[in-house]
Amino acid sequence: MYTLYYSPGSASMLVHLVLLECGAPHVLERVDLEAGQQRSVAYLALNPNGVVPTLLIDGVPHGEAAALAMLLAERHADAALAPAMGSPERADYLQWMLYLANSLQPRFRQWFYPDDDLPSASDAVKEAARIGVEACWSRINTHLATHGPYLLGETFSVVDLYALMLMRWSRNMPRPATSWPHLAELATRLKARPSWQRLCANEGLTEWA
Amino acid sequence: MYTLYYSPGSASMLVHLVLLECGAPHVLERVDLEAGQQRSVAYLALNPNGVVPTLLIDGVPHGEAAALAMLLAERHADAALAPAMGSPERADYLQWMLYLANSLQPRFRQWFYPDDDLPSASDAVKEAARIGVEACWSRINTHLATHGPYLLGETFSVVDLYALMLMRWSRNMPRPATSWPHLAELATRLKARPSWQRLCANEGLTEWA
Repeated sequence: MYTLYYSPGSASMLVHLVLLECGAPHVLERVDLEAGQQRSVAYLALNPNGVVPTLLIDGVPHGEAAALAMLLAERHADAALAPAMGSPERADYLQWMLYLANSLQPRFRQWFYPDDDLPSASDAVKEAARIGVEACWSRINTHLATHGPYLLGETFSVVDLYALMLMRWSRNMPRPATSWPHLAELATRLKARPSWQRLCANEGLTEWA
Repeated sequence: MYTLYYSPGSASMLVHLVLLECGAPHVLERVDLEAGQQRSVAYLALNPNGVVPTLLIDGVPHGEAAALAMLLAERHADAALAPAMGSPERADYLQWMLYLANSLQPRFRQWFYPDDDLPSASDAVKEAARIGVEACWSRINTHLATHGPYLLGETFSVVDLYALMLMRWSRNMPRPATSWPHLAELATRLKARPSWQRLCANEGLTEWA
């Protein structure tokens, strides 16, 4: 049994989507970030960094959204959300998961929280993040143009769910991901899945839903 | 058969170390970054981003150092460099790999290449990166104090090799990783392994060797 500590629209969204795609029974526990619940003693005991998501697996807490997505894909192999170990698509799968984790997601952190490391540098950090995010979208769009429609080609995977979450995060940026045509196509395709509809209902998301 | 396109001391070091730990036969091809060889037509055909590493697996090129490390650990399961799928340590393994990929390594990119996204913000980006890197080291040091000696406890894994590469990258920063005592212990322990000795010899590394 899983318990997901989440906040609507945050990085926990990826884990929530994967749970829905797996059809894995789970309980949702909302963490009220505005009220600072992530810094409560009870929550810090589960997640010493005070961030969402936390996923309890048989009562044991784990963190890092992309890692949890990969773990769930392994634990629910029947849902076929990731290429199996030893399959030819495995290298591409790992490469794209790590690319999103290493190149794209950190720049969103800097876009949304430019004050985190050095408050006086906030404007510069934010602008650099915007430029970096856009460069990543361009690269992914170019990849999809010739290797789509999904990031791994014909095969839907958790990489696409990860990209979908990040695309949603860009919705109010100067240039949203969906202004690139192949990313827009991917978003439309993924938002048609029942998992997305149910996620939006469960999390109460109305914007970009 | 593997062919690794590498540059001494760069992110390719992680893949090189994992190949040595696996005892996997491989050929090394040096890419001369100072001469701009990574932007040659021949290299861009292998790695459209023009970065190292590229690993040819049966002639097919793949990138992203951390992804390649994870892939090699899977392909050479007998070397026991990663907890097996389904094992209780698997969640921690994925969590730490993704933490290093998502929180620590991107800040090194900004420390070493602060001009990449927005040249005019270079100083601010670099200083924010330094603060972020140090916060990560503090967190890892705290973890090792109670859960060491390796990042996964008693079990050596590719997570440690990843951390070792990043520790080396910090050697000329204002506060190197090894100024945290548990990180220094980890570095000493890992540098005593034959893989490290051989890596330094193969890549011609003398500093922090």
